[in-house]
Amino acid sequence: MTSVQCVNPRVRRIRDSPQTVLQNLAEHITKEISLQKPFKEVIDVSAGDTHRAVLKPVSFLRQVLAVCVYPALLEDKSLPLDVKIRAQKLLEACDGGSVGSYTASSGLSHVRQSIAEFITKRDGIPSFAENIFICAGSQRAIMIAVKLLASGEGTTRTGVLIPAPCPHTLYPLLDEADVVLVPYQLMEEKGWAVELDKLHQALQATRRNCEPRAIYISNPGNPTGHVQDRKSIEEVIQFAAAERLILLVDEVYQDSVYGKDREFISYKKVLFEMDKEYAETVELVSFHSLSSACMGECGMRAGYMEVVNMDPEVMYYFDNTLCGDISTPVTGQLALDLMVIPPQPGDPSYDMYIQETLFTLATLSHNAKRVQEFLNKLPGVSCQPAMGGIYLFPRLHLPCGIKEQAKLLGLKDDVLYCQKLLEEEGVLAGAGQYGGITDSCHLRLCILVPSDTLDEVLARLSSFHCRLLGGTVTPRDA
Amino acid sequence: MTSVQCVNPRVRRIRDSPQTVLQNLAEHITKEISLQKPFKEVIDVSAGDTHRAVLKPVSFLRQVLAVCVYPALLEDKSLPLDVKIRAQKLLEACDGGSVGSYTASSGLSHVRQSIAEFITKRDGIPSFAENIFICAGSQRAIMIAVKLLASGEGTTRTGVLIPAPCPHTLYPLLDEADVVLVPYQLMEEKGWAVELDKLHQALQATRRNCEPRAIYISNPGNPTGHVQDRKSIEEVIQFAAAERLILLVDEVYQDSVYGKDREFISYKKVLFEMDKEYAETVELVSFHSLSSACMGECGMRAGYMEVVNMDPEVMYYFDNTLCGDISTPVTGQLALDLMVIPPQPGDPSYDMYIQETLFTLATLSHNAKRVQEFLNKLPGVSCQPAMGGIYLFPRLHLPCGIKEQAKLLGLKDDVLYCQKLLEEEGVLAGAGQYGGITDSCHLRLCILVPSDTLDEVLARLSSFHCRLLGGTVTPRDA
Repeated sequence: MTSVQCVNPRVRRIRDSPQTVLQNLAEHITKEISLQKPFKEVIDVSAGDTHRAVLKPVSFLRQVLAVCVYPALLEDKSLPLDVKIRAQKLLEACDGGSVGSYTASSGLSHVRQSIAEFITKRDGIPSFAENIFICAGSQRAIMIAVKLLASGEGTTRTGVLIPAPCPHTLYPLLDEADVVLVPYQLMEEKGWAVELDKLHQALQATRRNCEPRAIYISNPGNPTGHVQDRKSIEEVIQFAAAERLILLVDEVYQDSVYGKDREFISYKKVLFEMDKEYAETVELVSFHSLSSACMGECGMRAGYMEVVNMDPEVMYYFDNTLCGDISTPVTGQLALDLMVIPPQPGDPSYDMYIQETLFTLATLSHNAKRVQEFLNKLPGVSCQPAMGGIYLFPRLHLPCGIKEQAKLLGLKDDVLYCQKLLEEEGVLAGAGQYGGITDSCHLRLCILVPSDTLDEVLARLSSFHCRLLGGTVTPRDA
Repeated sequence: MTSVQCVNPRVRRIRDSPQTVLQNLAEHITKEISLQKPFKEVIDVSAGDTHRAVLKPVSFLRQVLAVCVYPALLEDKSLPLDVKIRAQKLLEACDGGSVGSYTASSGLSHVRQSIAEFITKRDGIPSFAENIFICAGSQRAIMIAVKLLASGEGTTRTGVLIPAPCPHTLYPLLDEADVVLVPYQLMEEKGWAVELDKLHQALQATRRNCEPRAIYISNPGNPTGHVQDRKSIEEVIQFAAAERLILLVDEVYQDSVYGKDREFISYKKVLFEMDKEYAETVELVSFHSLSSACMGECGMRAGYMEVVNMDPEVMYYFDNTLCGDISTPVTGQLALDLMVIPPQPGDPSYDMYIQETLFTLATLSHNAKRVQEFLNKLPGVSCQPAMGGIYLFPRLHLPCGIKEQAKLLGLKDDVLYCQKLLEEEGVLAGAGQYGGITDSCHLRLCILVPSDTLDEVLARLSSFHCRLLGGTVTPRDA
């Protein structure tokens, strides 16, 4: 029998993340609830899965997809006319008029064209379909871009700068690509802003260990909620240019900026409005996803990347690497088309579409403010305000007792906190540690949940937190 | 600017396959048709993409999925009752009742359970949900299994035995996993049967180059159309046991066996009906897919593998490796459920389901016979009969003139043949070379096409072939 020693050492290196451990615990608790728990259900606010949180999907998107899946619905009298016209158009873009056919590895050309039009309109800067690559989610796209750059051994291994904190899915993703991860610290006291000094520091510290070739940025920030302004983006671009780094910009929450006087500006727009020495040379890959806040279609697995200023010979390998995936799921590709070209004013579905997406944005904005204020009132908790995205990332100042307990158990403070919160109150929060924060203690909270769910989460969290601190609080920590 | 020399050498190693070159040419020709070509459209019979060939999808599957995508259709009066009941049940299996939610990495437990029930019923041997792993297509599943086994360097690198000919997608797939591919010859003159001698020969020849750890089998055979009987399967299992090889069995065409007195028997059934020394020890991973002949839902990207007799510590890494994929597309997972548990006698959708799938099988069976007979009448062509699957794999005996021309152009004979066939007649056939056949000349023809398309393909092929041979035919070759 194949023993575990025979398993690919690179595969064996992948360990359960704290997130997986917590999720397994949540599953276990869910099964046991009826027997012994004081709560009726586990509420998961550790990850952005809006449909699980029972927020409604965008009707227009689902209607069009239903017709594409079962074209006999083109005759259905209850569906709006624009739904049927759009479905007809999308079906024509599929080989054999069926979502069951393979597509080109880089995606349906019709959808790549729609994405290019969307970006052109968004930025006022031309975008071209041949620079757009569709894949099964933005994370897959990031993986492909990084895999392409991974090379060397020992001190010549490719290094990728990543923020701390970063999306909790990033570590396992980039680890698999076999690159050296070089964290740069975000400035918590400045609302998790990117600071140039920290970028230089990170680069300096790693120069002898690897060959840094790319910098990953999450904007709007996951899990920080920070949204960069033009000046900050310009600084990062200048840094990347000076250090010859490729910009890998995760812009999946571009549709959910709600901070006062803050708007989403894409890295591409800023780059192309800078001097020629930047606009024509800095290599940029930007990522977007159907799992974005307003669509939230995580289960459909579709996203894309736009690649600019890249050598065509290198571009060839984006396409070639994607061939390994055969096709991105077609329903996901069509949904991307609907995301980037939604109903327009005057269309029968326009009003409902606007209503639904505005509701999501209002929920986010309202929850962000509410949770931040609530958390800052809890003893031993401080939370920066968010300007966009779907997370808050509060800091916990825990009493010595629990820190010692964590040490004894061989756990990080935040992982133990999350375990107890889950066991005692049935709330699954994310442990900050896995976002690359190791020397302080943070929680990751998804705020894109209905308001009654949020009531329940805050009540449970507060009750747990005060119990924990009440029992072991010391003057220094409280 | 990043130069192509900086691209990951493992990525750079991936070259365009003959299939890609031919597909690109087909695309180019399609664009030019209106100007200068004698045909009105390019017909692709190189790959199994039944919906592109305008064969109809299974209505029940599409109806249920449409309701799952847009649950307001539960109120639709025109949809059959069993469609709505089934959709309701599947929605309940999704977190938040939405296809937009993430699922566990190994798939929805409801669907894994359905698959285990299907296998149990098919084989009369118990199957367990925890041994089933759902992924984005059977090829992704094969990739994951092989990646898990890949290890070593130089002469200790993992070797995988693969048939020649093999599915044309297998080489790029396994190449990426960085294992040594060890071809074993199938017996063309015996209808492409697997012969024990050839397995031993292949193993003998490679012992010093690598550590053979697995054998891949395609049954029903892609692209050969061969279907193994119980005795042949037993022999392969005994061989694998003696040589301590893991069996990787691609059974995606299990639903399409039409050979006289031939039925599909799974490797698992045969294995578990053998003596304990085999039944309890031989490690087996078997693969199935939604892209199977009768469903043909290639664009939905879903498949699964069942893993038996594997060390639980090793099993853990199947799950762990799948985590990198986040979730398999949910609509694809639900479609798998519908594939393995179709409508039952008495259900409103039963009759239509049976009618549709029998039509596919009848088309296959009829086309297989017709094409084989047709090809064997062409000068310089011999074609083994197929018993299952969706391909025929005829052999071409080409005249010296064209062989010399191919040599001059640096092309394999069959690639040149396919290029000319495509350019002159607009028929895209697969070149046998990429299925690992290098010393003789074969075509891969997908026969799962509507009968009028087939008429057109055969007419064009025959006209091209006779022109080619008529011009350069020599007595020895004709």
